[in-house]
Amino acid sequence: MNLRPGRAAVVGTGLIGGSIGLALRARGWHVTGSDVDAEVAKRALALGALDEVGQDDAADITFVCTPVGATAAMAVEALGRTAGIVTDVGGVKAAIVEAVGSPRFVGGHPMAGSEQLGVEGSSADLFEGAVWVLTPAATTDPDAYARLRAVLASFGAEVLALSPRQHDDLVAVVSHVPHLTAASLMRMASGRAQDHHALLRLAAGGFRDMTRVASGSPAIWPDVCLENREAILATFDGLLEALGEVRSLVERGDRAGLLQVLAEAQEGRRNLPGRAVRPAELAEVRTVMPNDVGQIAGVTTLASEIGVNIFDAEMAHSSEGDAGVHIAIVAADAAERFRDALAERGYRSSVRFLSG
Amino acid sequence: MNLRPGRAAVVGTGLIGGSIGLALRARGWHVTGSDVDAEVAKRALALGALDEVGQDDAADITFVCTPVGATAAMAVEALGRTAGIVTDVGGVKAAIVEAVGSPRFVGGHPMAGSEQLGVEGSSADLFEGAVWVLTPAATTDPDAYARLRAVLASFGAEVLALSPRQHDDLVAVVSHVPHLTAASLMRMASGRAQDHHALLRLAAGGFRDMTRVASGSPAIWPDVCLENREAILATFDGLLEALGEVRSLVERGDRAGLLQVLAEAQEGRRNLPGRAVRPAELAEVRTVMPNDVGQIAGVTTLASEIGVNIFDAEMAHSSEGDAGVHIAIVAADAAERFRDALAERGYRSSVRFLSG
Repeated sequence: MNLRPGRAAVVGTGLIGGSIGLALRARGWHVTGSDVDAEVAKRALALGALDEVGQDDAADITFVCTPVGATAAMAVEALGRTAGIVTDVGGVKAAIVEAVGSPRFVGGHPMAGSEQLGVEGSSADLFEGAVWVLTPAATTDPDAYARLRAVLASFGAEVLALSPRQHDDLVAVVSHVPHLTAASLMRMASGRAQDHHALLRLAAGGFRDMTRVASGSPAIWPDVCLENREAILATFDGLLEALGEVRSLVERGDRAGLLQVLAEAQEGRRNLPGRAVRPAELAEVRTVMPNDVGQIAGVTTLASEIGVNIFDAEMAHSSEGDAGVHIAIVAADAAERFRDALAERGYRSSVRFLSG
Repeated sequence: MNLRPGRAAVVGTGLIGGSIGLALRARGWHVTGSDVDAEVAKRALALGALDEVGQDDAADITFVCTPVGATAAMAVEALGRTAGIVTDVGGVKAAIVEAVGSPRFVGGHPMAGSEQLGVEGSSADLFEGAVWVLTPAATTDPDAYARLRAVLASFGAEVLALSPRQHDDLVAVVSHVPHLTAASLMRMASGRAQDHHALLRLAAGGFRDMTRVASGSPAIWPDVCLENREAILATFDGLLEALGEVRSLVERGDRAGLLQVLAEAQEGRRNLPGRAVRPAELAEVRTVMPNDVGQIAGVTTLASEIGVNIFDAEMAHSSEGDAGVHIAIVAADAAERFRDALAERGYRSSVRFLSG
């Protein structure tokens, strides 16, 4: 894959933008950055996250790292100013991807650094081992996707392709509603604490763990909640139903039911995956990609849906330039499953097992 | 205070019982222990948590460390077999304290080690810095309370006196309902995961923190839920109301309301106290305790209610033996507040400031 470092721009140089700048510069990129708060950009420069403050019309990749309310406008602006790839890091994707709608824009969301410490918390290895979602859409250029993917993989991130809608549904479940629930638990406990000094002293390990996310900055959340309103409301309804069910087991004194609910939760918690380990036996799945739009989204999000990890990927082009081949490196024991699923969607693929 | 080590018995030698055995033996106590599973008691012996396996009719203190369903019966049995103090470690207190009802029984609950790793997870310093609730009742013997308190303080625990009912109300808020909520979040996510392999890969730091408690053994929870049913149901209703409120802010798109809710939660989370630090300036509050029952509960739980930490305490007796004096060491700047609150409840106290 083309990992030649080039020129990058970062719009918004807080914790995430600053960390992207550090990660890029550590790999030889030239990074220009700006922030709505000029002081923040200066601090990013001083911390070594930028080569210079400003805009770069020659940027190969622009990372928009603003709050989600400003992201679409900044991305459109960067697409107009540069001929390069533009991506973002917002916690909500469908509205942004739809509003931007360019083949050169690939929506993104690194699942790291939610505590919002500001640029001073930046780190070149913030993304090492983190999942970084990309949301290719029907219009996404396969080469733009493959180049961006390779850059993020070079940070040590695990890239996961999801449709924008699927991303938003899933983060409502694993992030947005849990966050609002943690805040509600904390508020409930604080309310009681007015009567009971003792309560806060009783708040031991489990309660501290559960409410830790509530200690982050609240500022980013109203935008996120409103941009992802539908999925959050649907998830709330699911949670309220699940809590009502448990409440009713307690009320009825149903020991067996409680034990089953808790055993299911334990099983689920134990199965939370750690980092995807690159297996010893790998295979290459080559998929012919006609020069139509929308192919890269179909191939990569299908892999995520059926639980196939793509460890490396690139686009190869025939000399005539009228079609391309997407080459994905996957676990050897998942390759034929991936090929068959691609065939069901009308793609022609071939599998080649790589010798260890 | 009388810290002379003596003979102790541990009934139920799992994680908590084993850790108590290790902490006692490290301080010179002779510890005898038993478990309904003879293998577990043997392992506790092998791990150095016990001097011998069996029962000790001469035990000065018996720690009942069984699941809460069995605790009251085991405590009554130990009270019948020994002339010493009996305490327990169950996560629910009112039902147990009422069922046992002896001056020599003091209910207890160390807020540590909830992950239930079994005796192999035992550690002599499990209680170092942990809050250990004691629930003296109207019938509790002040000397029994003071002796037990001193032993627990020697483990490095912060002893907090609460009435059994207050303990149960508060742990519903900081432990039981949060635990059931974590389990519900985890189940909801697992349910979605059947459709979406991707979801579990998205479950990053915040979600892992929030659901960590759900990875513990479910076995102890049905008993706890049923023994503390009333408080859990009331707390569930409070949480469901708080969640409904947040859901409605999202639905209405109320940015200001969301920001306020999240800022309140952040404030509360930041104010969670760390370990109570022994201040440089201390004072002694001496309270006359007529030889009526119920005095120790009144004095010690009053301190917890008004947020006064008791750092050390002992009982002194007049030579005639017809009354006692409870001597509490508190922060110098809290001493007069404590004395005044005691006076309002009809106790005669004096304050003496200790020179640093």
